[in-house]
Parts: sequence; C-alpha cells; structure tokens
Amino acid sequence: MGEIISAVYHVTAGQADVERIARWIAVEQTVEAPEKLIDARIEDEIVGSVVSIDPVPDGRHAVRIGYRAELAAGQLPQLLNLVYGNVSLFESVRLVELDLPAELLARFRGPNLGGPGLRALLGVYDRPLLSTALKPRGRSDEKLAAMAGEFALGGGDLVKDDHNLVDGYEAFRRRIALSHEAVARANERTGRNCLYVPNLCAPAEHLPRFVEYVLDLGLRGIMVAPLILGLDTVRHLTSRYPVFAIAHPSFGGTFYRDPRHGIAPRLLLGTIYRLAGIDISILVSHGGRFNYPAEECVSVADAVRAPLGSLRPGLPCPAGGMRFERIPDLARQYGAETLFLVGGALLGHTTSVRSSTEAFLERIREQFNERCVAPQTDPSGVPQGGE
Amino acid sequence: MGEIISAVYHVTAGQADVERIARWIAVEQTVEAPEKLIDARIEDEIVGSVVSIDPVPDGRHAVRIGYRAELAAGQLPQLLNLVYGNVSLFESVRLVELDLPAELLARFRGPNLGGPGLRALLGVYDRPLLSTALKPRGRSDEKLAAMAGEFALGGGDLVKDDHNLVDGYEAFRRRIALSHEAVARANERTGRNCLYVPNLCAPAEHLPRFVEYVLDLGLRGIMVAPLILGLDTVRHLTSRYPVFAIAHPSFGGTFYRDPRHGIAPRLLLGTIYRLAGIDISILVSHGGRFNYPAEECVSVADAVRAPLGSLRPGLPCPAGGMRFERIPDLARQYGAETLFLVGGALLGHTTSVRSSTEAFLERIREQFNERCVAPQTDPSGVPQGGE
Repeated sequence: MGEIISAVYHVTAGQADVERIARWIAVEQTVEAPEKLIDARIEDEIVGSVVSIDPVPDGRHAVRIGYRAELAAGQLPQLLNLVYGNVSLFESVRLVELDLPAELLARFRGPNLGGPGLRALLGVYDRPLLSTALKPRGRSDEKLAAMAGEFALGGGDLVKDDHNLVDGYEAFRRRIALSHEAVARANERTGRNCLYVPNLCAPAEHLPRFVEYVLDLGLRGIMVAPLILGLDTVRHLTSRYPVFAIAHPSFGGTFYRDPRHGIAPRLLLGTIYRLAGIDISILVSHGGRFNYPAEECVSVADAVRAPLGSLRPGLPCPAGGMRFERIPDLARQYGAETLFLVGGALLGHTTSVRSSTEAFLERIREQFNERCVAPQTDPSGVPQGGE
Repeated sequence: MGEIISAVYHVTAGQADVERIARWIAVEQTVEAPEKLIDARIEDEIVGSVVSIDPVPDGRHAVRIGYRAELAAGQLPQLLNLVYGNVSLFESVRLVELDLPAELLARFRGPNLGGPGLRALLGVYDRPLLSTALKPRGRSDEKLAAMAGEFALGGGDLVKDDHNLVDGYEAFRRRIALSHEAVARANERTGRNCLYVPNLCAPAEHLPRFVEYVLDLGLRGIMVAPLILGLDTVRHLTSRYPVFAIAHPSFGGTFYRDPRHGIAPRLLLGTIYRLAGIDISILVSHGGRFNYPAEECVSVADAVRAPLGSLRPGLPCPAGGMRFERIPDLARQYGAETLFLVGGALLGHTTSVRSSTEAFLERIREQFNERCVAPQTDPSGVPQGGE
C-alpha cells in the first residue's frame, strides 16, 4: 500500500464536531468531492485516512490524517497543496506535525551546506555565530560597505543585506561588489572568513542572473524571502546553484501568527524551508518587538536542526530585537548551533560597528568555549569560490 | 518627490497605542531600524509617512501610510515586501487598501485576456458563465475526459481540472490530451467553444515544459495556485506565454481567514493577483462549506473587475459549495460578469453530467438575457490556437 505522509492538525472544535471535521479534511485535501462521488476504490486508494483523534488543551483536538505518499507526486508544490491546500481556507485548523516518508524526502536535495558546511566555511565552532544586517536603506553603498567591513574587522561571522535593500541589476552589482570588497579586505587582515550575503529580491526571470553575479564575485550565499519568491522557486534556485540560502520571514507571518490556524512555525520555517533548500532560517525571536512565545521560538530552532531524512541540518537564526543584555539568556535557550542576527541593536550599541561587534561577540563567548580552525574554502556542496 | 503607494492598514489597537504602531509600520516596512539610525535625509527620502489615523468600528483604527513608489523597485516581489513584509509578523495588522500609482501599474502586463477576451473566446455575453472541475482524483483519465465532454455537450463554458489532479509529465500529457479531445469533439457538435483548462502544479524547473505542451495542444488556459508556485513565478509565466490563468486559492487562506490580520481578500485575490497576470480568480463564496461573509465575497468579485491602470479586468469565480437552489441568489449578488464554479454540486446533481450542466445553465439563464455570438478564436492577447 506504499508509504504514508502523516499530518497532525489541531482543530478548534468540540467532541461533537471533530469527527466530521476530521473526515472533511481527509476528503477535502485529496479529492474535494461529495461523499456520493467517492466509490470504494477511490476511498481505498486516494482519500486520506483519519488515523486518530485526541483531545488536546484549550478545547482543541489533534487529528492525525494519513495520506498516501504518491499523492504528493514527489514535488514540493503538490506536497504543500496536499497537506495544507484547501484546509488553509477553513477556520481554526492548524497543521502542527508532518512526518514525511523516506522515499519522499529522498526527492529533495535540501540545504547545500547546512550548519556543518557553514561552520567549515567559517572555521568557528562551539558557540552561537553572530550576524548583522546592513541598514538602513537610504545609506550610500559606500557607507553600507564600510559597515560590512567594520563588522568583519570586529570578528563578526556573517553580514547580510537588510531585506529592504532592493534595487535593479546594475545598482545591485555596484552595491554588493563594494560590500564584498570591504569584507574581503577585512578578512585578509583578520585571517577569518566573515561571509557577506546579498539580499535577492528580483523578478522571477532575473533571479538566475542575480545569483550568477553573486557566485561570479566569489560570494557563497543569498538571502531570499521564500513566501515572496515562491517556495519551489527557491528550491529550484538552490538545487541549480551551489549557494547557501538564508530565508527571511517577510510576508509569511500570516501562516503562524494566529495560533489556532495556519502552519506551526517549526514546520514551515524548519521542515518545509529545508525541503526548499534553506540553510539558515531566520525566525522572529521572543523577547523582541514581535512577541512570540519563547517555547514556540525554541521549537522552530530545534526543527531547523532536527534529523530529516538525509537532508543536512540547518542553522536557526533568531532575530527581531536581540538586545545586548538578553544575549546570555538567548544563548542558553537556543544553544551553540545557532546564528544570532543582531541588526539595529548592534548597529546602535556604540558609535563604532567594529567595537559593537566585539562587545556582542564577547558577550556570546562568555558562555561557550569557542573553537576556531582555519576556514575551509571548499566544504561539501559548495564547489568553488570563497570570500 | 515622485509618486506614492498608499496603503491602509486596520490596526486592532486603541487610541493610546495606535500612533506608535502607525510609526512602527512606516519604519519597519522601509528601513527596519531604530529611530536613532534614521537621519533627516533617510526620514525624508525612504521612511514611510503616516498620512492619517482614523477610528473604525470594533476598536480598530485605519492607518494610512504613504510609501515612495520607487521603493517597490518596479517589481512584484519587492512591492509585496514593502506593503506587507515584516508587518505580516506582527499581530492584528491587516492590509485593507492599496492605491498604486500609474507609473508602477504600467510595469505590469496583467491578465492576457481578462473578462472581455474570455467572453470573445466563448462568444457568450450578459450572463454569469458556468464552469466545473474534473474530479475526483482517482477516476481514470478516460472517465474524467468523458465528464469534460459531457459538460461541453451540456453547454458549459469552462471545465478545469480539480486542483488535486497532479501527475508527472507523461501522465499529465496523456490525461489532458484525452480531456482536450473530448471537449473538442463536443465543441464540433455544439458549435460552441467550451474551454478546457488543465491544472498546472509542477516543480519550478518543469513549469515551462508543461505550459508549452498545453499551448501546443491548442489549449488556451492554465490553472495555478499562486501562493504555492509563487506570485511572481506566475506573473513570469503569464508574461512569457500567451495563456489565460485561473488562480486557485489553495494554501492562501491564512492571508485572510483571520479578519484582524493578513491582507483583505479583495486586495490579494483581486488587485495583487491581477498584477500576477491572473484572468480568473477563484474565491470561496459565502453560503458554501467555508463560511465567509457575503459582503467580503462580493467585494473580492468587485476588485477582480475594478479599474486598475490599463490592466484588463478579470473574471471573479465564486466557488465552494455552489448549490443548485442558491444559484438565483448568487447570480443576483455577483452579477453577470462572473464565472460560477460548480464542482461537486453539479457532478452530483443528476446521474448525467450533461443534464446537470443543462439544468444549472437553465437556472442561470432565468435571470439574464444571454447573448451569444460566434466564438472568436483570436482575441487580443492570445495570438494562436483554439479548442
């Protein structure tokens, strides 16, 4: 009978309704047809199975549905359609678990580098990594590049464009060449390999040209907003090019802002983004300006790193108001296999980006026994180049 | 100072907080930086302007923000990022209005055919059009094709694949060739031009091959789920190929299911989908199994047809439990410039798809003075082919 995709939904409904809703999900997601159009063969071979219904707190029920793996047709768009297509239109149904069989996972390449490959590129182990964002939009290319260079001189691990830095191809080339050069010069001085990552936001037909320019410069990574560019468009880019990819959460909050609906962020930003080839998944952390529950944030980080077939583990990247005084707590909660993204708090911490970077790194190192080795320019999955 | 993108957000907050939140939106969406990093020039040239704050019912405020049009970089991904990027991560902020300046709209081709082109292809005017979906998945290709042919013989206007019909390239070719032939044979008998529209759900790298096969067969349209394939990937496909496109709402409900958050569906399924080149936008109608408010559904239909620069008006396509007895009411509410999608209710209405189609059409015609002319095989925007 083949392998099964097992999906658990939290349904906000009482005992009286939940059986009907469970059956509705199983039918809607596979055949979307009235019961009288479903014959015995279609029921057996196509319609989802209601595996279990169990009460969970807050008046909800956990409904587990089994879908035959071949219904996903071995591809990400149809997998999304199958597990959360029409259900997204219904109220109070949240996808909270997704177990994907090995044969389906084997269809996905996943992150090109993942956490281990990024560590090898950097040569930094056993502590959370530190990243920042070049901002604000409106500063000159030269000033943004100078910030990038200062961050690298201060020992920072990864500096990326703000997701608001978007321009046409020529302006993009100019801007990222300057930031790349500034970081490369700093790396020559420090002997380290701080990574500069441009933001990729362009019309679909131009994405390859932008990525090729990034790779031609010798850069290794791109930042994308998967829910803006399209999850499968991102998967395609990361399977076509030897880049690592940072996912920005822009435009995606509607999927998990309402706790009774949508997709649990650990599934979306963890499991599903890794299917799309994401190496580093930015998540809005608790304690910042967005107010997500701490438990949920840590669960996202865990999912980014969790075993998933033979896909490489990713690096979770908590962001969104990472203040200096909270670094010890956050480091304890997220653990060493994390990339902290400190934007405004770092840039505004002192008048020098370099000394702010040093201060944040010192704060991180207090709790970890950092281990540094020579950066490796050619870890598996990324065949060439280097900052 | 250039043209302005004007966006209105409904913010669930009282008078005490709304000014702070309005400023936060204006900053977050443009520079995402602490106030102390914003100098006078960046404030003037980049940061959004809070234009007005007005109370609206239910304890909410309408906050109008003006963004300089050039911040959208003339492209759909950055427009989405600008008007609803990070805001999506915050609670209780809903984008409800979007006024786009002419110079930005002029960057978009919009629907290739729109309502007028589809009418010309069909030769049917002055009544709602009738469509159905081939289902359930699991029926043989031959049976699905037979249903398509019966629907065309019964006088139906458009028959599309169910969005669950997804297969590999060879299986896709076989299946849609059969349905195409069945509809073409029926059209020869009726002298009409019922349109058959395959569902397009494939890995990003294969989408062109699938579309080219559809066009090579002589078919004119595709169905896509823009939030699964990516909005800009869909825009690219529709600008590269002379197809009309039906948008399926799969996976997108999280954007409007919660009335305090997300994007008003008339903006997403109307305005934004038309920027992505969508001709026919399926919306989940009130009164069916999804329970959306009638006023909201009609507002989506209005937005699909409303003036939008020089973009062609689209056809709204109410769906989701369109029962026979409700057709007169729905026809009155949505008006003649509509495509009704009746799936399960039509297929299960009688034992013959042909006579069910005739019955639904009769029901529609009761209230309208249908006008038919010879189908035009070559309306503007779609250079060749024909069923």
